[in-house]
Parts: sequence; C-alpha cells; structure tokens
Amino acid sequence: MIRIGIVGYGNLGKSIKKGIEASSDMEVAGIFSRRKLDLDLYRPFSDIEKYKDDIDLLILCGSSDKDILSQGPRLLSSFNTLDSFDNHGKIREYFYQMDEIGKENDTLALISTGWDPGLFSLNRVLGVAILRDGNSYTLWGKGVSQGHSAAVRSVEGVLDAIQYTIPKDEVLEKIRNGEVFNFDSHKAHLREVYVVIADGADRKTIEEEIKNMPDYFAPYQTEVHFISQEDLDKNHKTMVHGGHVMTRGKACGDSQALIEFNLDLKNNPDFTAAVDIAYARALYRMSKEGKTGAITVLDVAPKHLSEKSYDDLIDLI
Amino acid sequence: MIRIGIVGYGNLGKSIKKGIEASSDMEVAGIFSRRKLDLDLYRPFSDIEKYKDDIDLLILCGSSDKDILSQGPRLLSSFNTLDSFDNHGKIREYFYQMDEIGKENDTLALISTGWDPGLFSLNRVLGVAILRDGNSYTLWGKGVSQGHSAAVRSVEGVLDAIQYTIPKDEVLEKIRNGEVFNFDSHKAHLREVYVVIADGADRKTIEEEIKNMPDYFAPYQTEVHFISQEDLDKNHKTMVHGGHVMTRGKACGDSQALIEFNLDLKNNPDFTAAVDIAYARALYRMSKEGKTGAITVLDVAPKHLSEKSYDDLIDLI
Repeated sequence: MIRIGIVGYGNLGKSIKKGIEASSDMEVAGIFSRRKLDLDLYRPFSDIEKYKDDIDLLILCGSSDKDILSQGPRLLSSFNTLDSFDNHGKIREYFYQMDEIGKENDTLALISTGWDPGLFSLNRVLGVAILRDGNSYTLWGKGVSQGHSAAVRSVEGVLDAIQYTIPKDEVLEKIRNGEVFNFDSHKAHLREVYVVIADGADRKTIEEEIKNMPDYFAPYQTEVHFISQEDLDKNHKTMVHGGHVMTRGKACGDSQALIEFNLDLKNNPDFTAAVDIAYARALYRMSKEGKTGAITVLDVAPKHLSEKSYDDLIDLI
Repeated sequence: MIRIGIVGYGNLGKSIKKGIEASSDMEVAGIFSRRKLDLDLYRPFSDIEKYKDDIDLLILCGSSDKDILSQGPRLLSSFNTLDSFDNHGKIREYFYQMDEIGKENDTLALISTGWDPGLFSLNRVLGVAILRDGNSYTLWGKGVSQGHSAAVRSVEGVLDAIQYTIPKDEVLEKIRNGEVFNFDSHKAHLREVYVVIADGADRKTIEEEIKNMPDYFAPYQTEVHFISQEDLDKNHKTMVHGGHVMTRGKACGDSQALIEFNLDLKNNPDFTAAVDIAYARALYRMSKEGKTGAITVLDVAPKHLSEKSYDDLIDLI
C-alpha cells in the first residue's frame, strides 16, 4: 500500500481523501492541517516531520501562492511531494527550486499536476511535438470561476453570485473547420453571471458595474442574469468545469490535422484529485526506481499511472 | 542528427520520408525496399545489415502481418526498430518476442505506435487510470477503410469504390450526455459506400450484395451511393480519417467526468508518420539512456517526443 499524507483539507483535500479510500493500492496515512479537524486521521501540521517514516508521499492541497510556494520547499526536504501548483508564470522557477532541494535530500517532487496544468499540459506538448507549425488553443469551461464569482459578490447590492466561463461555440467551430483567424483568449470566452440582489437595488447599475470591472469582466463579453437565491442554491451551487486543448497543424507533407482533447467535469476538485492520485502512483514508482529532484507530467510514462499490470495495459493498446 | 532508415516505401514510407525531411534533428539514412526504387537513398532490402553502423533506428513501414511480423524480429537483432504493428490480437505476443530479441542484442524496439494503436492507446490507458469504473469507448472515422473499399471493388459489376466508416452522431451524443446504454461497436458506426458501376449493371443486385457481405457489411448499417467515376476521382480519392476515444466514469466520490480525445485527419498515412517520427525521437533518446528490449507508447514520457528543450516545454505546462 502506498501511504499518502494529505496536507490541507479544503475542497481538494476532501476529494483526495475520497479518492484514496476508493483505491486498492493506497491508504491515507494522515491528514495535516493548521486548524484542528474532527477526523481520526487528523494530525497537526506543525508535527508533520514526526511522521516521516510512516508516509511515502504527501499531496499538497493548499493554494498555489499562499501555501504551496512555502510548504513545497520545506516539506520536500523530508518527504516526496505532489502538488497542483497552477501559477503558470512561476512554474519554471518553482520547478528548479524543487529540483535542487529534492536532489540534495534524495526526495522526489511531482509538481503542477491536475488537469490544467496537468492533462492539458500533456496535450499541448503532444500536439506541438506531432504537428509541425502546430497552433495550440486552450479554452476553459463551461466552468465555475471562484475568483470571478467572488469579484461579483463584492459589488454593492449583490447578495450572492456565481460566474461561469464558457468557450464560444463559434470559436470552437472555427478551429475545428481549420479557419485561419486571430485567436484571442479574451474574445474566445463568454462570461455568464447569475446574481442575487438586495431588495431595491438597481439592476442597471449593478449590471454596468459588473461588466466594467477591469481585468475580470471588461475585456470579455459578459452576460448578467438576475435570479432568486432559491434558484441559485438549487441550480448553480455546483463545481462543474472542463475545457479544450486543440492543436491544428501540418502532419508530414502539407496535410492538415486536428488533435483535440476535451474534459467535461461535474466536479472540478474531484477530477483534479483523481488526476493527482494517478500521478501520485507514478511518483511513488519513480521514487522507488531511484529518481530524485523535481518532475512534471512531461516526465511520466503512462504505464506508471494505472493500478493495472503492464500485461493488462497491453490489452488496451 | 538522428539517422533513420525507412523500410518499405508505400504510403506510410513516403509520408515518413517527407516528415523526416521537415525535421531539424533527423535525416533519412536509407530507404530499403525489395523492389528497385528510382531514389538517391534507395538501398536493396537484402543488403540492409551492411548499413548497421550508419543508422540509429529503422522505421518499419510494411503491413503488420505480412511484413512486420517477420521483419521486426530479424531487424531487431542488428538495429533499433519502430513500427506501427496494428493487429491488436497479436500485440502482446509480438511485444514479448521483440522484448527478448532486443535484450539479447542490446537493441530497443518501440512497437505499435501511430494513432490507433498509439495515441488512442495512450488515451484509453489515461482514461481508465484516472476514472474509477471508467467505460472507454473507441469510435473511428469519418475515414476511408482500404480493406472495405477493396471488398466492394471485388463485387461483380463494380468498377471502382470507396468506403467511409462514420461514427453515428447519436452514439457520440449518448456518451457525451452520460446516458447509460449498451455500447456495440458495430451499431455505433455507419458504413457509407460510393460505387461506380459498369454500364448495364443492376443497382439493386449490387447494393444487396454489398450490404449482405458477412463481417464487412452485414453487421453494420450500410448506405450505398452510385456515382460517376469523375465524381469519385474528384471528391473521394482522399485518405481522410480520424476518430474518438471517450472515457466516462467517476472521479473521486461519485461525480461523473468525461475525458474525450478526438482526431480529424486529412491524410491518414501522413498523420501516422508524424506520430511515428515523434516516437522515433523518443526511441532514440531512450536507447541512448541504455534501455533495451521492447517498449510501447505506454513507456514513453511525453518530454521525449519533442524537439524542444525541457525548459521550452515547461513553458507549455
């Protein structure tokens, strides 16, 4: 059994726990949190180094900038670690920092897995490795953006809100049809907002304020829908997400090809956790093979992801 | 430069040549064929062992059962080899045969790459590694089937013909919508036939004969269209292909997710060759690392597929 410690117990940590409990080759060896949890496996985060010998790897479930950037380097000096660090602009720097710490301490870190970064990264690389002069397009959604939802809730007169990011069908069609066009990620997505407002608040004012928020909404096509709290609670308190990685380019010669990878997820943290768990298996195996330092999804052979034997996997070829 | 020998010069061999010529890290070190070719790099197949020291790896471009099953084991005793062996029922046996020969001779074989087997295999494994109790569906097309086209051409009164395999939209929709249904690969595909017939031949008789061919058409929904030779030559002499690998299952907890991988290819051998070339790069690198025996796409880390440096690939994460 692969003994896994969970660090942080928000949405992702909870999904990781459920996923490990459903796996036959893994067990939860501890749930580490700074706040006291009413759980059998709860351990204070400050004691984590004491459990070094009881844990094969840690999955870091905190937020990228606030938690992982500081926890990752510290924990990697005693543990193998896996994280879904998703601040794309800092991934390279974080990778080399972790690589050095892992090599010094004979530990292994698998960073930035999940679905984006993670499976989407894998597909972006696959696309451009295969298609010459390939153009790679990433689109997200239909999915709930927590950050944008919170931004809308900060508007005066708004009681509750949810924001969906939606890739525009016409853009997906253009890529699928091989049309030559100027791809602009801002223009490729629609932002749909469902808002509950206070009695007497002015719809027009609120709608304008949302649509003109710089960065969040101003560069996008935004639709605002006013609904009741009951409607929001009943129909919009989900964590659906998904998206598309599409690469269009030339195969050998000048013939066009399209490689398309799509995800449609009913629950974003549950799916991120499912990917993390498969990659945790790979991390464990690669660490047993003697690998140290930092790796990403780009270093992982697909056979390492599955519980199944190589013989069983050959039958899926 | 990775020096590549091409074995066999049919459609696939020709696409491989074009693809290598467009790559900056590879060169064609010889084109080996049993029939004499009017090409600078042509070498008689019977002399191939003489070129052992000038070649880093061979790409075998013959047909699976007639050529690769006999050429693979022979050539692997002197060369690294890559093939697109696609007889799914024999892949496991062929793998172990090649694994033994490679280990005895310090050579490496990458077998059964391309898109199916190949990229589709990778996605089938990815799907079931991530989604618990996942159901994986593979559908092919819209694409030309050479075997089925030849079968139609063998019918009396038929002068020329082309057959498209087409996945049914209603089946794709059912999978995307998460409907529970009994998937039957035969019923999930439509076979569309375009036929040119001799003057005076009877349409009804020919249509019935095609539709009732055992194995080829009888188990399928088949549509037969009678067209002129001009129309066939102008609109149907392409090698379009593609398909879908869809995995639906549960992420952690009980939330559903769909992972979908689609290909839309204007030229089947060109795309197969583009995949082969990316995997040839991986084969070369893994052989340099000391790996011997047989491997498949399941053993290949994505970073090995690209010409780009790891730093450049990290920026795509």
